[in-house]
Amino acid sequence: MKNDRFLRALAGQDVDVTPVWMMRQAGRYLPEYRNTRKQAGDFLSLCKNPELACEVTLQPLRRYAFDAAILFSDILTIPDAMGQGLYFSEGEGPKFKKLIRSGQDVDELPDINIADDLAYVTDAVALIRRELNGSVPLIGFSGSPWTLATYMIEGGSSRDFSLAKQFLYDSPEAMHRLLSKLAKAVTDYLNAQIEAGAQAVQIFDTWGGILTSSAYVEFSLTYMKEIVARLIRESESRKIPVILFTKNGGQWLETIANSGCDAVGLDWTIDIGQARQRIGRKVALQGNMDPAILYASPDVIRREVASILESFGRANGHVFNLGHGITPQVNPDHVSVFVEAVHEFSGLYHSL
Amino acid sequence: MKNDRFLRALAGQDVDVTPVWMMRQAGRYLPEYRNTRKQAGDFLSLCKNPELACEVTLQPLRRYAFDAAILFSDILTIPDAMGQGLYFSEGEGPKFKKLIRSGQDVDELPDINIADDLAYVTDAVALIRRELNGSVPLIGFSGSPWTLATYMIEGGSSRDFSLAKQFLYDSPEAMHRLLSKLAKAVTDYLNAQIEAGAQAVQIFDTWGGILTSSAYVEFSLTYMKEIVARLIRESESRKIPVILFTKNGGQWLETIANSGCDAVGLDWTIDIGQARQRIGRKVALQGNMDPAILYASPDVIRREVASILESFGRANGHVFNLGHGITPQVNPDHVSVFVEAVHEFSGLYHSL
Repeated sequence: MKNDRFLRALAGQDVDVTPVWMMRQAGRYLPEYRNTRKQAGDFLSLCKNPELACEVTLQPLRRYAFDAAILFSDILTIPDAMGQGLYFSEGEGPKFKKLIRSGQDVDELPDINIADDLAYVTDAVALIRRELNGSVPLIGFSGSPWTLATYMIEGGSSRDFSLAKQFLYDSPEAMHRLLSKLAKAVTDYLNAQIEAGAQAVQIFDTWGGILTSSAYVEFSLTYMKEIVARLIRESESRKIPVILFTKNGGQWLETIANSGCDAVGLDWTIDIGQARQRIGRKVALQGNMDPAILYASPDVIRREVASILESFGRANGHVFNLGHGITPQVNPDHVSVFVEAVHEFSGLYHSL
Repeated sequence: MKNDRFLRALAGQDVDVTPVWMMRQAGRYLPEYRNTRKQAGDFLSLCKNPELACEVTLQPLRRYAFDAAILFSDILTIPDAMGQGLYFSEGEGPKFKKLIRSGQDVDELPDINIADDLAYVTDAVALIRRELNGSVPLIGFSGSPWTLATYMIEGGSSRDFSLAKQFLYDSPEAMHRLLSKLAKAVTDYLNAQIEAGAQAVQIFDTWGGILTSSAYVEFSLTYMKEIVARLIRESESRKIPVILFTKNGGQWLETIANSGCDAVGLDWTIDIGQARQRIGRKVALQGNMDPAILYASPDVIRREVASILESFGRANGHVFNLGHGITPQVNPDHVSVFVEAVHEFSGLYHSL
């Protein structure tokens, strides 16, 4: 591999500069993405077309010196494959035609077969790997079981997740059956991505942070641990690292770091130096600039990058990222400033 | 005062049972509130009418054995008094006609005079105190400077607060001028509420938790500390306790507890027993049941109340509350279950 900084950092090994990628780096802030999406017709058609998914995955790498590519897809492909009828209504985010509202709904959910039902994802992974041609590693991903369950119950995004929480508190057994089913599907899905060529995987637990700390462990982290334990952890003679990202999970950092994962993704509300102190060298850390800082001036972006690098200090095991996905209104030039600042300023903290 | 449990708990004194109140306890989940609001015409007219504001403040106390009343008002009365033109559009929450988008906008904001501009609030406080007639203490409140600033810049609620953050990062001096002006107004506002009869005050920092930890200290906590230092802290020969509530502030608990406040309000994402361990007896703690648990069955509500009481344990300094405001769809009968469970189960942990 020409550039393996990302995998080296996840393994806690020496690097020349801190590797950087961005959650949602293939996305609406890029005019070329918007063109390809228009060509595809809509968002879901873009996800389901391996050639176009490959194209948008590669677009940010043509502009910026990112140290990893991430599969372009949606986090809700699994419930869609289960027949829940995923669609996107303009300005409202993802929606489902069918909803999970009872234990019976859970029991009627079909088991899915990744090779049949999600071949468009594994085909995209294989194609992207071929096109990357060893330049940078490819990250596969999935939503966490809890995060998928919230969308399946609420029918879309939610302000207070009242339906998902009512289901959790009133029907904990049915919720556990749903989460078990999703954990099995996520495991198969990520393993299929690894077999198709993904060299690292990230689990996005976007909504774990809305739970109480005990409910987080019982209904989200437990299932992510189960997945981590069952993943293929080596392929092509390299370790396949697993990153867990729980938004608003800073309070539970030690518990997350003990899940068996290789790295914890941090949102921007935690100081990365304090996070490093709390967990030592147990796992690598990924993050954690506030994505809103990309709206600020280049000087401010550079200052914030420098401040995060300084807080992390002279240690291995840091993958630079935003604390959440980049937003559509960001000026693409600001992303250059961000990526270049990470590479320029981080040499100081490494001895390779 | 007939029932001073709330004030005793805030002072870390012995109580017979744990006192309880609920953020947004006067609100849309109550049919009598919806009737009064209809009578007022709209939400803002209800806030601005002292008799009707008094009526809705008292409504939950007629139904439930709450240990405190909280002034019914809106957190955005100060920017409204500054001429920003607060209005409410159905289903979309608060909006402002004028926006703060530059340092010049900040400098043109008028200084307000509470006695003239917010007499409807202090009149309501005086009236509620008279009507309460010593039954339970009355809590006054304000939004925090940072939280007020986010609404004034964004023009309403926001998904990612990109405008407020851009202002903060690109124009930190102008942001500090805005926050200073708001801190002065909030101080005068809370002191006027205390002079009119409020026996405790709470500062709602609803949006502090969206900042990085260093920005939280610089742009939110600093101004809340400044306010706390300038509040009237004794009235009618009793101490006036101050509660700071930062939603998603669990990671910064120690820093918040060192602000000079008497109590820290906790959202539901933190275990209250761990919070108690982290800060010792320095301040009282208020919270922290997930408001979504009120959607669950009575048994689940009772179990969660018991679990929070057990986690806090045999110690003084706990005011029971939700971790955020009650939501409109809650069944009013579930609130009875909640309040009664707190009183019934907490006797075990107290020796009075």
